[in-house]
Amino acid sequence: MPGDFTLALNARLDRHPGLFVGTCDEQGAGFAADAYARLTGIGVVLVTWGVGGLKLVNSTAQAWAESVPVVVISGAPGIAEREGDPLLHHKVKDFGTQMRVMEDVTAMAVELRDPVTAPRMIAEAFATARRESRPVYLEIPRDVVGMPAPPLPDDLPGPPVTDPVTLAACLDDVVARLDEAERPAVISGVLVARLGLQADLDALARATGLPVAETLLGKSSVGSDDAWFKGVYAGALSSDHEVRALIEGADRVLVLGAYMSDLNTGMFTAGIDRAATIVAHQGITYVGTHGYEGVGVADLIRGLVALYGAGGPVAPHVPRPRPPFAPRPGAPLGADAVFRALHAHVGPGHTVLADPGDALFGSVALQVEESGFIATAYYASLGFAVPGALGAGLARPDRRPVVIVGDGAFHMTALELGGMARVGVHPVVVVINNQGYGTERPMMDGVFNDIPPMRYSRFPAALGSGTGVQVDTEDGFDAALIEALADTGRLRLVEAVIPRDDISPGLAALTAELRKRVTRDA
Amino acid sequence: MPGDFTLALNARLDRHPGLFVGTCDEQGAGFAADAYARLTGIGVVLVTWGVGGLKLVNSTAQAWAESVPVVVISGAPGIAEREGDPLLHHKVKDFGTQMRVMEDVTAMAVELRDPVTAPRMIAEAFATARRESRPVYLEIPRDVVGMPAPPLPDDLPGPPVTDPVTLAACLDDVVARLDEAERPAVISGVLVARLGLQADLDALARATGLPVAETLLGKSSVGSDDAWFKGVYAGALSSDHEVRALIEGADRVLVLGAYMSDLNTGMFTAGIDRAATIVAHQGITYVGTHGYEGVGVADLIRGLVALYGAGGPVAPHVPRPRPPFAPRPGAPLGADAVFRALHAHVGPGHTVLADPGDALFGSVALQVEESGFIATAYYASLGFAVPGALGAGLARPDRRPVVIVGDGAFHMTALELGGMARVGVHPVVVVINNQGYGTERPMMDGVFNDIPPMRYSRFPAALGSGTGVQVDTEDGFDAALIEALADTGRLRLVEAVIPRDDISPGLAALTAELRKRVTRDA
Repeated sequence: MPGDFTLALNARLDRHPGLFVGTCDEQGAGFAADAYARLTGIGVVLVTWGVGGLKLVNSTAQAWAESVPVVVISGAPGIAEREGDPLLHHKVKDFGTQMRVMEDVTAMAVELRDPVTAPRMIAEAFATARRESRPVYLEIPRDVVGMPAPPLPDDLPGPPVTDPVTLAACLDDVVARLDEAERPAVISGVLVARLGLQADLDALARATGLPVAETLLGKSSVGSDDAWFKGVYAGALSSDHEVRALIEGADRVLVLGAYMSDLNTGMFTAGIDRAATIVAHQGITYVGTHGYEGVGVADLIRGLVALYGAGGPVAPHVPRPRPPFAPRPGAPLGADAVFRALHAHVGPGHTVLADPGDALFGSVALQVEESGFIATAYYASLGFAVPGALGAGLARPDRRPVVIVGDGAFHMTALELGGMARVGVHPVVVVINNQGYGTERPMMDGVFNDIPPMRYSRFPAALGSGTGVQVDTEDGFDAALIEALADTGRLRLVEAVIPRDDISPGLAALTAELRKRVTRDA
Repeated sequence: MPGDFTLALNARLDRHPGLFVGTCDEQGAGFAADAYARLTGIGVVLVTWGVGGLKLVNSTAQAWAESVPVVVISGAPGIAEREGDPLLHHKVKDFGTQMRVMEDVTAMAVELRDPVTAPRMIAEAFATARRESRPVYLEIPRDVVGMPAPPLPDDLPGPPVTDPVTLAACLDDVVARLDEAERPAVISGVLVARLGLQADLDALARATGLPVAETLLGKSSVGSDDAWFKGVYAGALSSDHEVRALIEGADRVLVLGAYMSDLNTGMFTAGIDRAATIVAHQGITYVGTHGYEGVGVADLIRGLVALYGAGGPVAPHVPRPRPPFAPRPGAPLGADAVFRALHAHVGPGHTVLADPGDALFGSVALQVEESGFIATAYYASLGFAVPGALGAGLARPDRRPVVIVGDGAFHMTALELGGMARVGVHPVVVVINNQGYGTERPMMDGVFNDIPPMRYSRFPAALGSGTGVQVDTEDGFDAALIEALADTGRLRLVEAVIPRDDISPGLAALTAELRKRVTRDA
């Protein structure tokens, strides 16, 4: 998103056609860059100072919370302009406000004042974003743009080397415990995807035959069609009873790069005995109650593959059958039917983006491609999925974005759909219209959960892009979804009208748990 | 905007019908509360933690930058839930992230952990917001809601008392200089409106006959129909040549509560001799090069009224005639005609909200009611005007909001129009469609200034509220505007299509100045 403090930077971007992609609002730009980074390993969002950068605090906080390597770049007033501390437009308390705020939500925040040191700082910022899988922030005074600078350094220190003695001891310990276990299992978390360990984990599963479940935030770190994939484990919110029985009945669980957050564990309903787990994070691995410092999840997975072997050649990709959906003609549409239809038709060739709320909880069981599912399943910022589709469509043009979003979340960022066609992104958008914030009603209801009714099927006409349809029966939704998925060259919006208080079984279990906490104090 | 960390607070709001007004996104809520506060003296925005509060950083920064008393209230996880530092949803680095961020953009930020001290902190926060005319922040852990607490204190320290000796000396000094001046004049700034000094300034003008100009940010601190009102003074951006000649030809200028920011002064093109000015801020008044500490703009104005008298009874309100606009039938619409038509028809009975960019610069000369013009003329955050109309319509139901907004800004927050009808707010929205960020093109152009074309006239149909029309001729726009203004019971959107590179004369002058700064370094 341009602004007068970034124009000199924008003009340089124009020299690289395709690199610049505009959005309607900075919030949308931040979310699009986040989704792009989840799929490619880096995403960059460029905004102006103050009115631009301060709109990115929430999306950058999301990137921090969910370990996404987003590089936030902001233009800023020129150093020379600041003389005498004038009241330049977009200024808040002083020229440092935005830098201080960004320090609170990034792993590294620097101002590029000096062209001599700028290339090293830029290289370090990108390296930090990749190494820590966290957002970083670069602020560029506009009069620094264009100054002569030395080349990017090629002598940056590499990532810390893992101590081989500690690593060997850790691997011995882990292998011994896995070998002695009778019912071992793996939980794959978000860092498997963020650190690019999917192929390594696949090799480990092939070699060992270990069954693999995922966390909700880690969903699609393993492809749903892989033989070793068993589903999403999240305590009471798990995708099915079998995966819950598998994990809670295991006598040794290998937890790889997973955050044990409230939503990720079904509001802490996950029942795993800590002494029976091996938990690998970034930079430390715990075997039961003792830890191996410096041994990170990448070290562990790759070390195990080296010991067990890679398990032979990769098998050809054969999609597992989806459970068929037989809509009842004329039957009123409900949440359960929406997700059963989605389960039957969505997955192969798609990047699914599910917004927080029932759009996410109802999607737990969807069978998706590896890296084919994106959701803010920990930070839970509504409105991410629509702009996220822009980033996902650009990152993986071979996979069409399929957005699943509630009406409340759609109200936040729907306009971003208007700009996608011009860069060749044509999502399918399923708007689940349950007339308000349905995730909150079971916890505590009131007029604050009502939202103004809009005519979602008319949005494409207003945005000048694609077509929309409103359906309220099972067969109507099924047919509209099939037609939308077949029409790949333009935005297709399907508004699924369901009863006001209809929620998915997963959400019912979750909100029962949440309600206890809200009403206890009300 | 509700969220599970605020539900207990929301449920209590439901006991006071009408107090809660929802928006589509937190950004819209922040802007609506800002506009409401500009007109009533206080505005409150209530959001959830993390995904809610961190979306408010920009709107709160705007409130800080433009001296608006907005109270930001955020729910938060319960104290008991934080034990063991769990990964609760919406958490970023730790439980203090949002508090630290809000400290950077507010005058006071406190967490209400203790019910015994909470009432005093609440009272102090509201008092600080009113006294300093700045935003404040209250964070409320959800398990504190409903705890028994003492009543609100009635022994809060009052505002600091101005030292009478210093005040008397200052008034003597000011009166002597005004009396000896041959061509004295007044510039009224934003603090005249924020501190509720409009009637006092009117009395001073009646008593002394001093002519009064306004800054751009202070526009409508004086009503355009008052005899002493001379226009907006902003250097090269002034509303007319006469007001510029008046101020720059004055031998003594009394500057009351004005920020001498870049946009407010026509990019520092305002030519005023500092030695010839009397400048009153909050808490200090400068007479030429010496200052009277503790004497604020309210002290000065009220002190002068006490000395000069109130100038007799208030004259009946007689609107000055507006310059008539004679549209040329079939003539292609341009920016100049848009603003001439607005000037002819808009003002009495309206609150005009002009978004930054040409929508604002072209509106400089509009004749408006006292407190009848709202714009972010210093901080300049695009997208403020549409949600601002919600706050303005609620604050002044006797005045219909008239929004003037560019297509680029409209893309940011347009969905907020969808929720206004349910609370009885029915704005007229003029969308000036010049196919992109027209304010930036004269500075530096490229694909980054192009925005996806949308069909603005179809937005009301999609939002389920009101009607829209697209026009591209002078007579078409004139007729559509007249019809929209006459139809007071529903949203009326008028899309004014003008040529891509057509800008108002005021913007041409401003961007010529800005371009020098951008291109110098590119």
